[in-house]
Amino acid sequence: MVEYGELALKEAARYRGKIQVLPKVPIRSLKDFAVWYTPGVAALSRAVHEDSDLSFEYTWRWNAVAIVTDGSRVLGLGNIGPEAALPVMEGKALLFKYLGGVDAVPLPVATQNPEELVRVVRLVEPAFGGVNLEDIASPKCFYVLERLRAEASIPVWHDDQQGTAGAVLAALLNALKVVGKRLSDVTIALVGAGAANVAVANVLMRAGARAGQMIVVDSKGILHPERPDIEDLKRRNPWKYRLAVATNEEGRRGGIREALRGADAVIAASRPGPGVIRKEWVREMSDDPVVFALANPVPEIWPWEAKEAGARVVATGRSDFPNQVNNSLVFPSVFRGALDVRSRAITDGMIIAAAEELARFAEERGLSEDYVIPRMTEWEVYPRVAAAVAVKACEEGVARKPTTWSGELRRAQEVIGATRRALDALMRQGLIG
Amino acid sequence: MVEYGELALKEAARYRGKIQVLPKVPIRSLKDFAVWYTPGVAALSRAVHEDSDLSFEYTWRWNAVAIVTDGSRVLGLGNIGPEAALPVMEGKALLFKYLGGVDAVPLPVATQNPEELVRVVRLVEPAFGGVNLEDIASPKCFYVLERLRAEASIPVWHDDQQGTAGAVLAALLNALKVVGKRLSDVTIALVGAGAANVAVANVLMRAGARAGQMIVVDSKGILHPERPDIEDLKRRNPWKYRLAVATNEEGRRGGIREALRGADAVIAASRPGPGVIRKEWVREMSDDPVVFALANPVPEIWPWEAKEAGARVVATGRSDFPNQVNNSLVFPSVFRGALDVRSRAITDGMIIAAAEELARFAEERGLSEDYVIPRMTEWEVYPRVAAAVAVKACEEGVARKPTTWSGELRRAQEVIGATRRALDALMRQGLIG
Repeated sequence: MVEYGELALKEAARYRGKIQVLPKVPIRSLKDFAVWYTPGVAALSRAVHEDSDLSFEYTWRWNAVAIVTDGSRVLGLGNIGPEAALPVMEGKALLFKYLGGVDAVPLPVATQNPEELVRVVRLVEPAFGGVNLEDIASPKCFYVLERLRAEASIPVWHDDQQGTAGAVLAALLNALKVVGKRLSDVTIALVGAGAANVAVANVLMRAGARAGQMIVVDSKGILHPERPDIEDLKRRNPWKYRLAVATNEEGRRGGIREALRGADAVIAASRPGPGVIRKEWVREMSDDPVVFALANPVPEIWPWEAKEAGARVVATGRSDFPNQVNNSLVFPSVFRGALDVRSRAITDGMIIAAAEELARFAEERGLSEDYVIPRMTEWEVYPRVAAAVAVKACEEGVARKPTTWSGELRRAQEVIGATRRALDALMRQGLIG
Repeated sequence: MVEYGELALKEAARYRGKIQVLPKVPIRSLKDFAVWYTPGVAALSRAVHEDSDLSFEYTWRWNAVAIVTDGSRVLGLGNIGPEAALPVMEGKALLFKYLGGVDAVPLPVATQNPEELVRVVRLVEPAFGGVNLEDIASPKCFYVLERLRAEASIPVWHDDQQGTAGAVLAALLNALKVVGKRLSDVTIALVGAGAANVAVANVLMRAGARAGQMIVVDSKGILHPERPDIEDLKRRNPWKYRLAVATNEEGRRGGIREALRGADAVIAASRPGPGVIRKEWVREMSDDPVVFALANPVPEIWPWEAKEAGARVVATGRSDFPNQVNNSLVFPSVFRGALDVRSRAITDGMIIAAAEELARFAEERGLSEDYVIPRMTEWEVYPRVAAAVAVKACEEGVARKPTTWSGELRRAQEVIGATRRALDALMRQGLIG
């Protein structure tokens, strides 16, 4: 890690940022500005004034996403504030464009007040086609997302919730195929009940996992309706409270060890390890256990330890182990598909469709214990996920510009490919490098 | 105009926007994201958390400007709201990059409340190195700018005020040279007392014009301290009130005609003509009068009419007549210079320095009645204005990264040139076109 950090500091000082704004239209002489700016532009403004939806046809809005954070939970660094969050948001913008063809703008916001965060997103809505919330502390993030999903006219999602849930579901669907189990049958332990796992639990239920057979454990132990802090939870974190009520039908008590006992799968998104999950606890899981240890930079248990303890399929958040559960497989294509059909929202159905498409893609290439989710380098996957998301949006009636699978596949290939071609040209000319 | 509008609609529907986000760093393989994103990026966040100023070194913030509007006074179209303002803001972003090398992001905001507009700019400050306010109705714009100039830690300006004032001052300085008069001697009539002319009046005073010899006329007539609405003005528009008190020492009364009588120069920024200013009124001005008729799309008086009535130098806002008084000569380079020295503000002194440099540039090329201000196509002018602005920021103690004239000239040439080279490469490769 240290060497990546040093390299990042060196390269950041050299390039002074990772993204730039460039023209998308030809400029052959300044006379062209009579069309791109005044007097021509007045016709666009008049048209949009008549029908504000035309802002998606006549400006970059159809493809523009704000990456909004309050910097309250950045990477593993905690509440480091909006300025310190900016480098991460800029890196995210780079991924958005490179993998999804999306014009993303980093927008860290100087407030810790959730009402104000909601308000600022509502205020900048006219500038964007979608909003990606990022690195916002839990439980505030649940409230902010719920409000914005209900109130905003453009799709808003929180990548630490839905993006992670989509990637986890994809990997879990395939891991269960590898071990020959069904999502509707298995017992799943969820270690950690922050943004990621609360969303994972909800998406898993929507996708067919049985709520009663999920055991969620947070820093105070297993969630159940008689926990001493249950009233406090109800008031402070109703999202976690709902899980305490809906999951764990057997009323299991205890900590991580007890949560894992007999479970078919564990999904840990808690705190950096190693040693958060112990080998002996994995040994106490059911046959052929599935272990997702997603904490960064160090997973809750090292993959080799989990394997030694009998885990059949192990996934982490890291690119240097097999089975990287990686949001970057999800958010660029989900937004690509949602933007292309001008979706009103990104529904849970669309997230599940993205996960199922990711799973199908890997399955077509041949599943194994070491390959349950596509790798980032498998370029063909992004347009396919975009197509799956777009089609689901149409089915669910949230798409304002309906499309077909093949229509969106072609379009996403074109839009994503354009970025790569532009970057290649700039690098070849020595203008970036 | 009609044909430009039709062309703008056609081209906008084809290109769907004018700007895009592209990488500024090379990406040779997805492994590079270990530096551009996690885990490397954590080192940047840690460093910025220690010293938030480093956000200007390690991200695009040093060069990123938000173009903020509430859409309350867009072009000549009035209060058409934020969505309809977006095409104009996007065109402005294109100019920012093409002429100034500045990464500008259109940010129309869905509020008509000035407090909320101030608040949203303060909230997004961590994302940007500067803020360009645009197309905000008067007198609200004066209040919003005053608050933000006082409170924000990054430079904030309102282009309809300072940008226009800078361009007007440049043209006026040279027009007076052509007719052999001095700024400190002349009588100047200002027709219109909106965002533009209130700023013009203030900047002219700072630059050496005598307040008492300015006559300002708004839709109700000449400003003077005994106007029936003076108390109302004091309460609703203290900025205009201050002009009513400071200008017009002779206590002249009447309308535009009376304001122009005997004046050496008229600067009209009021409402589209023709016929707002009449030929016979220009005949009643002093010898060798200077007429700036800046309304768009049609000036307050046609240039040929003004000439027939004896005007020596005529300027308009249009590119199809000589002497275009054009903000595009000002805002890209002023921000270039201010950003490059990390200025805390854009002071009146910096605006005057920009105007003087523009004037000097034209003078070096040879002044005439038809050439008192550089043309947009004179590329060498932009880096020179940036250098003048940067040096003035250093002199005034608002620059956080001091530079020299030649240092900033070189740097601005490089940064502005990079955009043109990138666009050329993309057009040559057929990736834009």
